[in-house]
Amino acid sequence: MTTTRQLKLGANLNGIGNSIAFWRHPEVPINASVSLDFYRKQAKIAERGKFDLIFIADGLYINEKSNPHFLNRFEPLTLLSALAAVTEHIGLVGTLSSSYSEPFTVARQFASIDQLSGGRAGWNVVTSPLEGSALNFGKGEHPKHALRYEIAEEHVEVVKGLWDSWEDDAFIGDKINGVFFDPSKLHTLHHEGKHFSVQGPLNVARSRQGYPVIFQAGSSESGKELAAKTADAIYSAPESIEEAKAFYQDVKARAAAYGRNPEELLIFPGIGPIVGETAEEAERKYEEIAGLVSIEHALNYLGRYFEHYDFSQFPLDEPFPEIGELGSNSFRSTTDKIKQEAREQGLTLRQVALRASTPRTAFIGTPETIADLIQQWFEEGAADGFNVRTVVPNGLVDFVDLVVPILQQRGLYRTEYESETLRGNLGISVPRNRYVWSA
Amino acid sequence: MTTTRQLKLGANLNGIGNSIAFWRHPEVPINASVSLDFYRKQAKIAERGKFDLIFIADGLYINEKSNPHFLNRFEPLTLLSALAAVTEHIGLVGTLSSSYSEPFTVARQFASIDQLSGGRAGWNVVTSPLEGSALNFGKGEHPKHALRYEIAEEHVEVVKGLWDSWEDDAFIGDKINGVFFDPSKLHTLHHEGKHFSVQGPLNVARSRQGYPVIFQAGSSESGKELAAKTADAIYSAPESIEEAKAFYQDVKARAAAYGRNPEELLIFPGIGPIVGETAEEAERKYEEIAGLVSIEHALNYLGRYFEHYDFSQFPLDEPFPEIGELGSNSFRSTTDKIKQEAREQGLTLRQVALRASTPRTAFIGTPETIADLIQQWFEEGAADGFNVRTVVPNGLVDFVDLVVPILQQRGLYRTEYESETLRGNLGISVPRNRYVWSA
Ligand SMILES: Cc1cc2nc3c(=O)[nH]c(=O)nc-3n(C[C@H](O)[C@H](O)[C@H](O)COP(=O)(O)O)c2cc1C
Ligand SMILES: Cc1cc2nc3c(=O)[nH]c(=O)nc-3n(C[C@H](O)[C@H](O)[C@H](O)COP(=O)(O)O)c2cc1C
Repeated sequence: MTTTRQLKLGANLNGIGNSIAFWRHPEVPINASVSLDFYRKQAKIAERGKFDLIFIADGLYINEKSNPHFLNRFEPLTLLSALAAVTEHIGLVGTLSSSYSEPFTVARQFASIDQLSGGRAGWNVVTSPLEGSALNFGKGEHPKHALRYEIAEEHVEVVKGLWDSWEDDAFIGDKINGVFFDPSKLHTLHHEGKHFSVQGPLNVARSRQGYPVIFQAGSSESGKELAAKTADAIYSAPESIEEAKAFYQDVKARAAAYGRNPEELLIFPGIGPIVGETAEEAERKYEEIAGLVSIEHALNYLGRYFEHYDFSQFPLDEPFPEIGELGSNSFRSTTDKIKQEAREQGLTLRQVALRASTPRTAFIGTPETIADLIQQWFEEGAADGFNVRTVVPNGLVDFVDLVVPILQQRGLYRTEYESETLRGNLGISVPRNRYVWSA
Repeated sequence: MTTTRQLKLGANLNGIGNSIAFWRHPEVPINASVSLDFYRKQAKIAERGKFDLIFIADGLYINEKSNPHFLNRFEPLTLLSALAAVTEHIGLVGTLSSSYSEPFTVARQFASIDQLSGGRAGWNVVTSPLEGSALNFGKGEHPKHALRYEIAEEHVEVVKGLWDSWEDDAFIGDKINGVFFDPSKLHTLHHEGKHFSVQGPLNVARSRQGYPVIFQAGSSESGKELAAKTADAIYSAPESIEEAKAFYQDVKARAAAYGRNPEELLIFPGIGPIVGETAEEAERKYEEIAGLVSIEHALNYLGRYFEHYDFSQFPLDEPFPEIGELGSNSFRSTTDKIKQEAREQGLTLRQVALRASTPRTAFIGTPETIADLIQQWFEEGAADGFNVRTVVPNGLVDFVDLVVPILQQRGLYRTEYESETLRGNLGISVPRNRYVWSA
């Protein structure tokens, strides 16, 4: 048994969607995004690899230019509930927007998944980058970036308040005397805030892990602040170890500034590992996937980050066009980075579009190379864990069978689950109930 | 093989909740309402009995007087998703309020369950009787009964419109040419109505059964109208065969008046069968359950139907008090009936409260007695099927093992599932996509 700090792993399961033309590969089942069988198998593979969690992304607006996976996919909470019934250990983290949902419903559905799974649920709080989302929810206007984060913060606070409605020992169940619960252990929130007014109590009790784990996945200033105040974990998208380290230090310092233990805010960069027997084989796998993307689809894909902007109006092989503030009310941290890189590296529109549509992380090579990189990021303070995307067919199986054993041999990664709950496996504490004096 | 009209059966699964003091019985597991294991076993029993569906009720407001089951239970959609993964044939019908939900989210989550289950989902549309629900959703006031039904009608129409976003053959998946779908088969709803404005399209395709089955569970004039216009099935609560027949004829006639085939609107009265080897044994089981209810709890239970009215202020053994219109903005069809019966039969407050809290249907006795009653209701035009509640421990097992075989022997009930979808088993047709000319 080791007591050194342990690496954490998530599997970002994405049907046909992990890169824009993934579905075109001969080995990818084209109905994967709506196949329970596909997700069940992937979840089982991740569980065999002792992953902490599976992670389901989401979106609330499509049009005919959207990425194929977005057009027809499972809604995350229903999918995770189904997976709760057919998995035993792995955490179940789903994305849900705080901009277009009711805190009472969100609190209930996640608490319910937490009960269904015996304490394995997690909520990835997002603010919905796509402006079109507003049109599906009868809102005249998509709230601006800063307002979305203001709403998010209050939303999460209300949800947490509702999760505390019942003290853990409220349910007595005295059959003889007919006393089901102790009324002094039932609490009514009475929240009256700027964006929400919610009375409570919630009609679901806390699970064994207290609250579902809170993930956050925005990297702008506001996103980092939200995470530092309210989240247990961050899903980030750094492009280099330097960027990852800077982000790591930044966010941990913010958490400390809010009086939190920075070890209780875990940073999970997303990686798309491509494993080969040799470096060349891994490269070939990347090229094979990248080669499936047409430039037309790549422009659509890029446009989506910029409020579905039509980039096809510009010449492909000239420098990336000057588009001003476009994108800053949408995926701001992503669009800022795209613009900056294009400027700094003098990229053409074609180069920018192809890079964006077939993202390439450093984690390409032999199992040892990938394990080395993971160890380096982990030990040098760039990551607490990784969210692993499948970017080539069998990407997850290869990672589990070839990379995980190396990480285990090096003592970086568990060989058995330590706990029955997601919080327990992540090594973060059960939140105390706000109505209970001694925790 | 028989071609005569076949009876349909639903199992209303309710944790510890099917009667108010059910949880006090020594054989009832007190955590049943939040035990996936409990629901999984019940669903498997129902599936062994070739039931068409399981049915999950719901509510959006609790206080310290609420029925124990309501205090801490699974949210229906997450529960049904979990059960989708561990059942094969049975339909999965969940209650969700049209007064406190967004059509886009409702359409998505049910469509997702429909995909997860291969076409077995159903939505029981309710309008939320409890005024307190408004307080959990930031609404100043609970909409009045008529307005709730007006909202419900538009809500269901929007949801159905979203379900038609994709034609069934929209997804081509041509890997060679990179054509994922045919854009002419993607439809954007552009709904602009009095209560909702929803653009679409939905990001989930139709399942094998077209739409999830629509249940409706309100019996007032407005409730019957909503069902006649939009539902595939009604969950009703008649107290006698005469009442059931009148309701049946009434609703079928309304469906016909809207140009529908009345056979496509199925009527499911709720029954709480209590099976005994003899009539006396069955009676004893009823008395045992009824005897667990204290009068204090019975008054609370009654009060909930009347906007949480405090009945303990009245003498118990005098005639049921005159309370005017109270309750008519809440569970109107139920409260009207309670008042009418009390008046007509000269009941005391104690009698009314005890009856309400331990409802007693006619379906008590030997397996043959119960099968006879079911056959009579079915053949005399009082029901197309029944929604079976568990009101005594092992109530569902007893029904499946002892009553179902008799119904099968009499040729009234299937011995094997006919179809893979819920619509197929119910014998109702797949709705045509509104954007497709030839169905
Ligand atoms: C790694 C990562 C994953 C994300 N996943 C989702 C997602 O699944 N659904 C979503 O609506 N937004 C997602 N987002 C978007 C963010 O939640 C956020 O709305 C957007 O990035 C704008 O916020 P920011 O400027 O703070 O990054 C993700 C962002 C990042 C960086
Ligand atoms: C048999 C039956 C079952 C019902 N189930 C639910 C339920 O699970 N959740 C709910 O909120 N309301 C439920 N209701 C309430 C109705 O949906 C409706 O809101 C209420 O009865 C008032 O409408 P009405 O006057 O048309 O009956 C049920 C009603 C009946 C008759």
